[in-house]
Amino acid sequence: MRMAELSRTTGVPVATIKYYVREGLLPRGEVTTSPNQADYGDRHVRRLALVRSLVEVGGLSIAAVRATLAAVDDPAVPLHDTLGMTIEAGDPASTPAPDDDAQRAAEARVDELLAKHGWSNRPGAPARQAVIDVVATMSRVTGTRLDSVLEPYVEAVAAIAEADLDTVSALSDVEERVETALVGTVLGDRLIAALRRIAQETVSARRFPPRETL
Amino acid sequence: MRMAELSRTTGVPVATIKYYVREGLLPRGEVTTSPNQADYGDRHVRRLALVRSLVEVGGLSIAAVRATLAAVDDPAVPLHDTLGMTIEAGDPASTPAPDDDAQRAAEARVDELLAKHGWSNRPGAPARQAVIDVVATMSRVTGTRLDSVLEPYVEAVAAIAEADLDTVSALSDVEERVETALVGTVLGDRLIAALRRIAQETVSARRFPPRETL
Repeated sequence: MRMAELSRTTGVPVATIKYYVREGLLPRGEVTTSPNQADYGDRHVRRLALVRSLVEVGGLSIAAVRATLAAVDDPAVPLHDTLGMTIEAGDPASTPAPDDDAQRAAEARVDELLAKHGWSNRPGAPARQAVIDVVATMSRVTGTRLDSVLEPYVEAVAAIAEADLDTVSALSDVEERVETALVGTVLGDRLIAALRRIAQETVSARRFPPRETL
Repeated sequence: MRMAELSRTTGVPVATIKYYVREGLLPRGEVTTSPNQADYGDRHVRRLALVRSLVEVGGLSIAAVRATLAAVDDPAVPLHDTLGMTIEAGDPASTPAPDDDAQRAAEARVDELLAKHGWSNRPGAPARQAVIDVVATMSRVTGTRLDSVLEPYVEAVAAIAEADLDTVSALSDVEERVETALVGTVLGDRLIAALRRIAQETVSARRFPPRETL
């Protein structure tokens, strides 16, 4: 199909499609009969839907989507490394963490926690570094007040990851697997965050019931 | 203290402090003896640490931090409404969701899910709308492949919210409570996302062990 039809099929404006092609998020159409016309297929429709969901709902920057898709398209990069990358890619400012006591204490604490639960703990992995940075910042701002959440979070997240892998393992098609893992991971973060607000409101209302009015 | 000392104490450059004051994220210093010199206190040190953590690690935009802090400072806004706002505030593009079958099906599904678990379900609440938008987008991109994650996510997130409220309920000082809830919520999202990547890698390695090499 021509670009105009690709636009109608997906609901994405032609200007946006051209922008994605220029930014390397969408492969160019194949040149067929006429040298000035490119042909787009189902592969483009799917990739476009994936890009839109990562940008619009997942909140990834164009650079982050490009890096993630390049890793997805590279069979040499294991899928879970790709998913770890989305953590770093979604990071806005990422100034280097200060090398202070809070940072060193957080690193030791996270190492101990991951070892206790038998979790992967590769130095240099972006997700491990993100956990350390967040724990260090929490302690800089709130002291030890948030220390008690780590254990329950690890247990809850273990159940979430089992559900994630159940979903992905059930798929036999490799492309569906990668796409589902990527969408499920990036959009899943937002889903979990939004569900968490509703759960907080629910638990908060139960523990601190609003006073009845006359 | 003077602004130069506030900068030394917090490690935040003077230019950044001036920017935060101009953007309304940090109250102006109090004018004391000399009309050209403002005085900053502990309140400014704490607020500056809070702003830095929301911007640098939480990834909120300046506008989002301003809206969130204004709600925090307004005693008429309940805390859980403030926390719900951070979902919308953290949203990058937020184009309006299309009014299609996927959107309507997602709304019905989410309503049913929240009702089943006795969770708060206020129409118009930003967190509820975010859940609906994500579920609709997931189904547009991956069909029904991610439907199975919703139930386990709700159960895991319920445990996370109980841990959140345990932490906040343990504090008697109202300001500490608000600050801890805000930091715990915004930074907690990043913590949970990063832990989820590590858990996914761990579960993935267990289910799909890498082939041994010779």
